[in-house]
Amino acid sequence: MIRIALLGCGRIGKMHAATIVRAENAELAAVYDPVGAAADEIGRLYDCKVAASAEEAIALADAVLIATSTPTHADLIEASASAGKAIFCEKPIDLSLARVAACREAIKGFDRPIQIGFNRRFDPGHRAARDAARAGEIGDLQQVVITSRDPGLASRDYLKVSGGIFKDMTIHDFDLARFMLGEEPIEVFATGAALVDPTLAELGDIDSAMVVLRTESGKLCHINNSRAAAYGYDQRVELFGSKGMVISGNRRAHHLERFDATTTGAGEPYLNFFVERYAEAFTLGLQSFLRCVAENRTPDATFEDGEKSLALAEAANRSLAEGRFVKVAEILG
Amino acid sequence: MIRIALLGCGRIGKMHAATIVRAENAELAAVYDPVGAAADEIGRLYDCKVAASAEEAIALADAVLIATSTPTHADLIEASASAGKAIFCEKPIDLSLARVAACREAIKGFDRPIQIGFNRRFDPGHRAARDAARAGEIGDLQQVVITSRDPGLASRDYLKVSGGIFKDMTIHDFDLARFMLGEEPIEVFATGAALVDPTLAELGDIDSAMVVLRTESGKLCHINNSRAAAYGYDQRVELFGSKGMVISGNRRAHHLERFDATTTGAGEPYLNFFVERYAEAFTLGLQSFLRCVAENRTPDATFEDGEKSLALAEAANRSLAEGRFVKVAEILG
Amino acid sequence: MIRIALLGCGRIGKMHAATIVRAENAELAAVYDPVGAAADEIGRLYDCKVAASAEEAIALADAVLIATSTPTHADLIEASASAGKAIFCEKPIDLSLARVAACREAIKGFDRPIQIGFNRRFDPGHRAARDAARAGEIGDLQQVVITSRDPGLASRDYLKVSGGIFKDMTIHDFDLARFMLGEEPIEVFATGAALVDPTLAELGDIDSAMVVLRTESGKLCHINNSRAAAYGYDQRVELFGSKGMVISGNRRAHHLERFDATTTGAGEPYLNFFVERYAEAFTLGLQSFLRCVAENRTPDATFEDGEKSLALAEAANRSLAEGRFVKVAEILG
Amino acid sequence: MIRIALLGCGRIGKMHAATIVRAENAELAAVYDPVGAAADEIGRLYDCKVAASAEEAIALADAVLIATSTPTHADLIEASASAGKAIFCEKPIDLSLARVAACREAIKGFDRPIQIGFNRRFDPGHRAARDAARAGEIGDLQQVVITSRDPGLASRDYLKVSGGIFKDMTIHDFDLARFMLGEEPIEVFATGAALVDPTLAELGDIDSAMVVLRTESGKLCHINNSRAAAYGYDQRVELFGSKGMVISGNRRAHHLERFDATTTGAGEPYLNFFVERYAEAFTLGLQSFLRCVAENRTPDATFEDGEKSLALAEAANRSLAEGRFVKVAEILG
Repeated sequence: MIRIALLGCGRIGKMHAATIVRAENAELAAVYDPVGAAADEIGRLYDCKVAASAEEAIALADAVLIATSTPTHADLIEASASAGKAIFCEKPIDLSLARVAACREAIKGFDRPIQIGFNRRFDPGHRAARDAARAGEIGDLQQVVITSRDPGLASRDYLKVSGGIFKDMTIHDFDLARFMLGEEPIEVFATGAALVDPTLAELGDIDSAMVVLRTESGKLCHINNSRAAAYGYDQRVELFGSKGMVISGNRRAHHLERFDATTTGAGEPYLNFFVERYAEAFTLGLQSFLRCVAENRTPDATFEDGEKSLALAEAANRSLAEGRFVKVAEILG
Repeated sequence: MIRIALLGCGRIGKMHAATIVRAENAELAAVYDPVGAAADEIGRLYDCKVAASAEEAIALADAVLIATSTPTHADLIEASASAGKAIFCEKPIDLSLARVAACREAIKGFDRPIQIGFNRRFDPGHRAARDAARAGEIGDLQQVVITSRDPGLASRDYLKVSGGIFKDMTIHDFDLARFMLGEEPIEVFATGAALVDPTLAELGDIDSAMVVLRTESGKLCHINNSRAAAYGYDQRVELFGSKGMVISGNRRAHHLERFDATTTGAGEPYLNFFVERYAEAFTLGLQSFLRCVAENRTPDATFEDGEKSLALAEAANRSLAEGRFVKVAEILG
Repeated sequence: MIRIALLGCGRIGKMHAATIVRAENAELAAVYDPVGAAADEIGRLYDCKVAASAEEAIALADAVLIATSTPTHADLIEASASAGKAIFCEKPIDLSLARVAACREAIKGFDRPIQIGFNRRFDPGHRAARDAARAGEIGDLQQVVITSRDPGLASRDYLKVSGGIFKDMTIHDFDLARFMLGEEPIEVFATGAALVDPTLAELGDIDSAMVVLRTESGKLCHINNSRAAAYGYDQRVELFGSKGMVISGNRRAHHLERFDATTTGAGEPYLNFFVERYAEAFTLGLQSFLRCVAENRTPDATFEDGEKSLALAEAANRSLAEGRFVKVAEILG
Repeated sequence: MIRIALLGCGRIGKMHAATIVRAENAELAAVYDPVGAAADEIGRLYDCKVAASAEEAIALADAVLIATSTPTHADLIEASASAGKAIFCEKPIDLSLARVAACREAIKGFDRPIQIGFNRRFDPGHRAARDAARAGEIGDLQQVVITSRDPGLASRDYLKVSGGIFKDMTIHDFDLARFMLGEEPIEVFATGAALVDPTLAELGDIDSAMVVLRTESGKLCHINNSRAAAYGYDQRVELFGSKGMVISGNRRAHHLERFDATTTGAGEPYLNFFVERYAEAFTLGLQSFLRCVAENRTPDATFEDGEKSLALAEAANRSLAEGRFVKVAEILG
């Protein structure tokens, strides 16, 4: 049994806790949250140790699941690594590329599995799309189109500390783009505007964005973001190749279609929001991590993946500011 | 050039006239309608002879297109046949099976093409479904399900002389069933009710019906009718076999989908009514007839097809009255 | 906490056990299976009492979940009822209508909840269809079309004791028809054939069936069955009314569409078989039962529902034998 | 009757000729093609005058339809305008923005209708999408996504004189973008590669492109091009706004879906190529022009629209070369 320490007992933490207790090869060894009540709730629900500190929780575990607030991620990764524990850390590693690089240096030589919470890689539809592409079903992959729109604007308080749309929201799409493309984007173009809520300009942020990536071999990728889709959470991935196309589409809770005097085939709203839409992805991602821990294998979404997606977000910020196609090498340089 | 005499210049007659004038191998030689004004309109539009009688029109032609009212069909078939002209006659041949049999006897030995206007056989989707089944794509055909619902109740005046739902409306589905099944139904069950307009009972008619057919080898077919589908003309054909299924679905004028806070993927209303939905089928059916005339071949929808569909309608009427699975042999005697 | 005795630890029993242990208001008090090993497995997995007899298990519980083989259902219902325990029994109550009637008499006066395992009533899509109809969205309900096809023929051994297609398979559709129609079918027509496996005739059974039901007010229902759909488990419900239509369609594991030189929009296979397709329905049905037990309310799928569906199956058998529209009153006589 | 002179009797010319002869308010007065045989064919087919020169044809007409090769367009527009004839000219006006500007100057003061052949504006689905947006159905329009992929690479000879992907192919999408956005794009980003046929680099051309446009108010538009979609002609327009979304999708010849052991709901290939996909659009566009001529109204797709789309193409070329977000004002200078 893999003993897990869960750090952070908010919405995502609770989801992971439920997955852990159902897993056959893992158990919840300890939970910790700076807000004691949140940890207590999970402790009572699953009858597990509520640790007084992150350090105490880490000490009790084989693997650490970091679901705390973003600014603590890098520190907790370093603490867990120095304690020799396998690590699952929610995205992003940090909002600062420098801090991420420092963290990478700090854990150099660490040889246990470390996985970043890019759950969308584990969504069955998205993964089937990628598997079809890898298997040659669509010939040579030429274009990727990712539509990624949230169902509604997050709170002002959240947005203030989010790091901006590219590091907070698009970072999932940057990771998905890399996962799908199968080669590194070398150039990034980004533009956007505050169309949902023009006052976002006060935060220096935008809520609507269009991004284009280009790889060395010329593969193209478009990402399309909005913070507020009236019709729900919109998550589509289109892979276009020399022999065909696959599209991983949106999901509904069930398949009722309505027909009346004005419309035909009207479907149910989409699953909304990520907790529902990506429920399987969260579970499958954590299960995959547990298998990697058990077999000491490299996970699907690594620390390097976290760093590279952040570099793309940084490049997008620079492109937005300077109105040009920014080379990723300038950022990583 | 095949010279065509068009008898009957109503809605269907006009459609056929437009197809004839565009055909490369045919021309409108003469038109006739007991209502002179209707014939005059087509005569002016296409600059063709307006005959004073059906006989005069027939005499001017190589082929006769009969689109007059049902009670005149059999007489005009006989007149055309005795004049040695190829014949295209709208369905049904007659509402009386005895009259149809008499007509068959009367034209015995007639060796020119005669086609009945079962246009749905020529609908590209329905035909592709049948072609797929014939080509073995779905293995052995086992079940056919036909959904056939009109967008709204016809006028009382029309319904009074329609011959009842099975001879007027379901007869198209009986023909389609035979076309799809590839073998003769030997038993018919039918039930129904006047649900759209309960006062139809005064006419001894119904507006909602469910029919089941069974062939000698046990193949099954269900037909589902309503005189009034609020969401438009509903025309679906499902073929189920040992290796798969094909469904020929409804058609829309274009493919706009709408997404809002309550529905996703809401499509346009269906094409409505048969003039729009089966526009291609009408054209393709008449073109097929013209080719048969040119090559003196047997058409796809023959006099015999017209008679057999009417026998199924008669069997359905008897089943409705007697509440039992009626053998078609009882009807055909 | 509602203490549950689980009788029968096969495939369905295991599913229910998993739901019970996750429920907040229930616990697995005891399990029993004539095959000891099956009970032991669940006992070990969930750390619960393995009873030496059904009676012992019943005595330890507040509610009994009967998932044993069909011939034992009525006896166990009677035993549970006489012990005053709430009852959840898998369908059918018995293959004999006389035995069911006797069971009904035997438990007369029993006032605890008793639910029959007609899980499809709890499928979110099917239920949303019914709720839409009940809410008046489609006006007056006029027609119900149920497509219900298994992905493959069951084993010969299973089929031999199944009671025949109408009591084994269609019984789910009969229940769904009653659930959707909102009034009792008064007449039943059924026909069919052994098209999947002609040797089924040796068992006096069929594998392909078409059924038509009619209610007092003239509402119509068609049920379409096959024991073997090559493309997977096919479960569709269509409700047609004076103002529109709703269709509860099939479900896929995810929404990948494929496009190549010959096809467009090709979807994933359907979820297959009932354990996957109706996973939510099984869970929601049992949760609904637990709420009924907690609040001592009448469940959604009652003993009477079980008896009436069996009567429709019996009527279908008679219709198949006699080739006529059989009145349900003849059966219930 | 509006007398039309058709200049250019190739594929597009023939399509327009067929529309003209069917129009109630127009007739084919004369045809001209430098390749005499092409003109003769149409002349024979529709029994109309075959002119010896463009000038002769123009003199015989009320309106001139220019469907000749691109380099002749501007000259023929000037000739027709100076003769005072209404003008319908296929896109593009010219490959050189300077020549277009000169043409604009040359016809200054011309007050008859002049329409550019941006047929996609008249596609019923695309127009319904725009009408829905204009009617406020999706709230404030925020994003436009245009997918536009040809079914296969044109011939090398064609590509050599095409003017490059942006002026030849994307120009349709630039026009559609302006039509949908309802305000002018002020900045253009473009990137791409020769992925379909790497040897296109020899022509200085690409076959795969991604473009992003931004308007003054921040509205965003993405255009996605490929010269070779294996699954057929891919023409989708997505309009995303504050209250919802509409998508105008691809079209199939009919609606057959296939289900087998590996896929469900597999549809027919898309209509392929523009002659089929945009058949209605070509007809509706020309009919709209004829109404404008009859009523002396300004057409939907004006000379200015032709010039502005070409400016966007020019900006895209500059963006591709310089890797930056190019202001349209730089181009229009």
